[in-house]
Amino acid sequence: MNEKAKLIAPRLPRGFEDRAPGDIGAVDAMIAKIRTVYERYGFDPVETPFFEFTETLGKFLPDTDRPNAGVFSLQDEDEQWMSLRYDLTAPLARHFAENFESLPKPYRSYRCGWVFRNEKPGPGRFRQFMQFDADTVGAPGPEADAEMCMMMADVMDALGLAGKYVVRVNNRKVLDGVLEAAGVADEGQKLTVLRAIDKLDKFGIEGVAALLGEGRKDESGDFTKGAGLTAQQDRTVLDYVNGQTPPDNAGVLELGSMQTLFDAAGYGADKIKIDPSVVRGLEYYTGPVFEIELTFPVTNEKGQEVVFGSVGGGGRYDGLVSRFRREPVPATGFSIGVSRLAHALKLTGNLESANADGPVVVLVMDKDQTARYQAMVSELRQAGIRSEMFLGQTKNFGKQVAYADKRNAPAVVIEGSDERERGVLQIKDLVAGKQAAQSISDNTAWKAERPGQFEIDRADLVNSIKRLLADQQ
Amino acid sequence: MNEKAKLIAPRLPRGFEDRAPGDIGAVDAMIAKIRTVYERYGFDPVETPFFEFTETLGKFLPDTDRPNAGVFSLQDEDEQWMSLRYDLTAPLARHFAENFESLPKPYRSYRCGWVFRNEKPGPGRFRQFMQFDADTVGAPGPEADAEMCMMMADVMDALGLAGKYVVRVNNRKVLDGVLEAAGVADEGQKLTVLRAIDKLDKFGIEGVAALLGEGRKDESGDFTKGAGLTAQQDRTVLDYVNGQTPPDNAGVLELGSMQTLFDAAGYGADKIKIDPSVVRGLEYYTGPVFEIELTFPVTNEKGQEVVFGSVGGGGRYDGLVSRFRREPVPATGFSIGVSRLAHALKLTGNLESANADGPVVVLVMDKDQTARYQAMVSELRQAGIRSEMFLGQTKNFGKQVAYADKRNAPAVVIEGSDERERGVLQIKDLVAGKQAAQSISDNTAWKAERPGQFEIDRADLVNSIKRLLADQQ
Repeated sequence: MNEKAKLIAPRLPRGFEDRAPGDIGAVDAMIAKIRTVYERYGFDPVETPFFEFTETLGKFLPDTDRPNAGVFSLQDEDEQWMSLRYDLTAPLARHFAENFESLPKPYRSYRCGWVFRNEKPGPGRFRQFMQFDADTVGAPGPEADAEMCMMMADVMDALGLAGKYVVRVNNRKVLDGVLEAAGVADEGQKLTVLRAIDKLDKFGIEGVAALLGEGRKDESGDFTKGAGLTAQQDRTVLDYVNGQTPPDNAGVLELGSMQTLFDAAGYGADKIKIDPSVVRGLEYYTGPVFEIELTFPVTNEKGQEVVFGSVGGGGRYDGLVSRFRREPVPATGFSIGVSRLAHALKLTGNLESANADGPVVVLVMDKDQTARYQAMVSELRQAGIRSEMFLGQTKNFGKQVAYADKRNAPAVVIEGSDERERGVLQIKDLVAGKQAAQSISDNTAWKAERPGQFEIDRADLVNSIKRLLADQQ
Repeated sequence: MNEKAKLIAPRLPRGFEDRAPGDIGAVDAMIAKIRTVYERYGFDPVETPFFEFTETLGKFLPDTDRPNAGVFSLQDEDEQWMSLRYDLTAPLARHFAENFESLPKPYRSYRCGWVFRNEKPGPGRFRQFMQFDADTVGAPGPEADAEMCMMMADVMDALGLAGKYVVRVNNRKVLDGVLEAAGVADEGQKLTVLRAIDKLDKFGIEGVAALLGEGRKDESGDFTKGAGLTAQQDRTVLDYVNGQTPPDNAGVLELGSMQTLFDAAGYGADKIKIDPSVVRGLEYYTGPVFEIELTFPVTNEKGQEVVFGSVGGGGRYDGLVSRFRREPVPATGFSIGVSRLAHALKLTGNLESANADGPVVVLVMDKDQTARYQAMVSELRQAGIRSEMFLGQTKNFGKQVAYADKRNAPAVVIEGSDERERGVLQIKDLVAGKQAAQSISDNTAWKAERPGQFEIDRADLVNSIKRLLADQQ
């Protein structure tokens, strides 16, 4: 490499981040708990790759008006357009259609994986994030939707969030009935109205009214164009938002069936609740839609107290597989936002801190004796003890101990020339040392006492370290 | 969705594949074993995102002559070039440089993740595949390289491959000494010579000679341009390939130090072996290079018996972090090809089959009684029993049982109107049923006996299923 070359700045593109050991461990533990619930419900894992043909994924992202906005796309060497998946549902629809003959029907599967959005990143808004989904494909009835809601509730309970969440349920057919009654027929206008209703939690009834009419200007001055409804259309929609549901609507009947199942299985309104303001942004939903809301208060960027809000949701998407197959294929599913849920668990104290214990560090006192230190480390490892020989550039004893401290090491092993001649080792118990340090204030006394340090026979290395680790528990 | 719209073909771009439940479980189990070894050696997990700035990754892929060939790149909305990582090493170098002040030094970390190559896919050659890496950054000595080799050997042992692998070790400095002795100075020509030596296993000494000279035509007629060495240069390189090493070479001394450590830790030549033909394709290696070779025989596409070959490797890359920081930062590491290793374990019978037991299926005998079936499933799930209500479109009893069979269900639960009136359930033990079926050949006798089927009180559901599952173990 050319030494005079210009240095490259070590940085990540915006909206991407590294994951530290503690985060990885904690999220892995959370994912394992979610997986246990999905498995208990009879779902099996399946995974798809990160790329699909662009036409396979379709254009179902919310809040994007330009074609392909929000999606990372590129042409491969065969000049075909491929895109990185923006969710796990569109690839599942492709997988099911591709393997239609061999898969059991209904097809019940789950998957946890990274998805990508080519959007303007912001606080807590990433361009790569993890979702954990479950879906039932080939199940037409509200029993399948009701099961999704109960499973979401069970997941929240399994994560220790009982009493801090509610699964809110609505039905797109109810919303469609309202739009029909209001005489909104244009597809684009329909979506704008749905997105307006969806904002009830965020902007209140006045904000929704603005978004149904001319539009809404936020605090920063950004203007969101409204649906442009007439006064009468406006009233019909606002009546619905205020609690009036259309009579004899297929969606209302389905919600009734779901409620019967929730009752039969013992899920009260504290866990699962019918709620007319639930919309879900994705365009492909056709029936029941649901959302997990965390109800505990947090303070937002403006210092206001708000509820934590959604950590996932889903709904019925009967048309998504039909894009690949002529016959109708009913399907329903939901998605948990893993990072956002982990953040919530951190706030409630339900995220396990999963920092592994550090390794025992064998210090390198004499560079020409590394074979002896290597033999010690190998003995420890063969006994199943997490350990390493110090491999850094420094020969300084204090700096090597400081490294061990930073790694959260339980102990260091020391063999200088004196110990080598006498066939012994010094063991420095870093945990006991730290405790003792709190009661010794005098530096001279400290050096004389060497708290936590003791001498052993070289032959006793493995047994001594085993005893020390057991004592530290 | 428009019903008359043209159907989209449900297929994946070439070089990408879905993963079935059994594969996911088996690979997860394999990864867990590898992780245990890495942790025992004192390495901690860290993960980077899939995208980096293109300049961060650099151009170090083997066998690519055009700039950016082999890498998936795109411009984001800010018009900056980003690329999907093609390995896990370049992102680690960026991570270390970016967090230089806060990280312990040496920095010992591992990571498992997907990487991407924009190459022509072929049999067993994918454009998305998984690597599992470990690296020590900030360690200059051959002790760190030797540790990598020993850890690779321990991983193979932990996976049950003892006696079926060898870790082969060489040093780029030795290779550089040979190139210098041969008078090969041009960087491009050097790489071509190294790649030729690397092919010794695959093409034999004659193939290497051809690649050192004018070039080599393979069976399919494809021509690979050679290094164009003179006769004398050619002889120097071939002497080396035949076992002659340059005297007083820094690389030879380092290999000697590593051998001393292997001896001290008890790793014989059956596990780790110095071998002059090891090159490793990546351009960024600067010192020791190593490779895990599986030595058991397999039959290739042409029906020839060959050794399974490489499942991973690595080496010292002292220059990679220096692209970001003026000071030298020595580093070494290795990478395991997860899919290829899993394939090898499948061949040797060391891959755990990890198909989960299927769920107990509650059949839907009467569509208007789903609340009752839902209550049964909820009871079973609350008792921790994997179970589901049949959610498919068919009302046919035989098809519902066929679904349960396909899911590998241990049992189905049946409540028709007769059972409902009597307060009982029929349990059909599918495992016992299958065993009994083997001894009953008469269809009439079969229907009369209903092997594996028995009646229980509705109140005994959970206990009966628990007993049945225990008996099936």
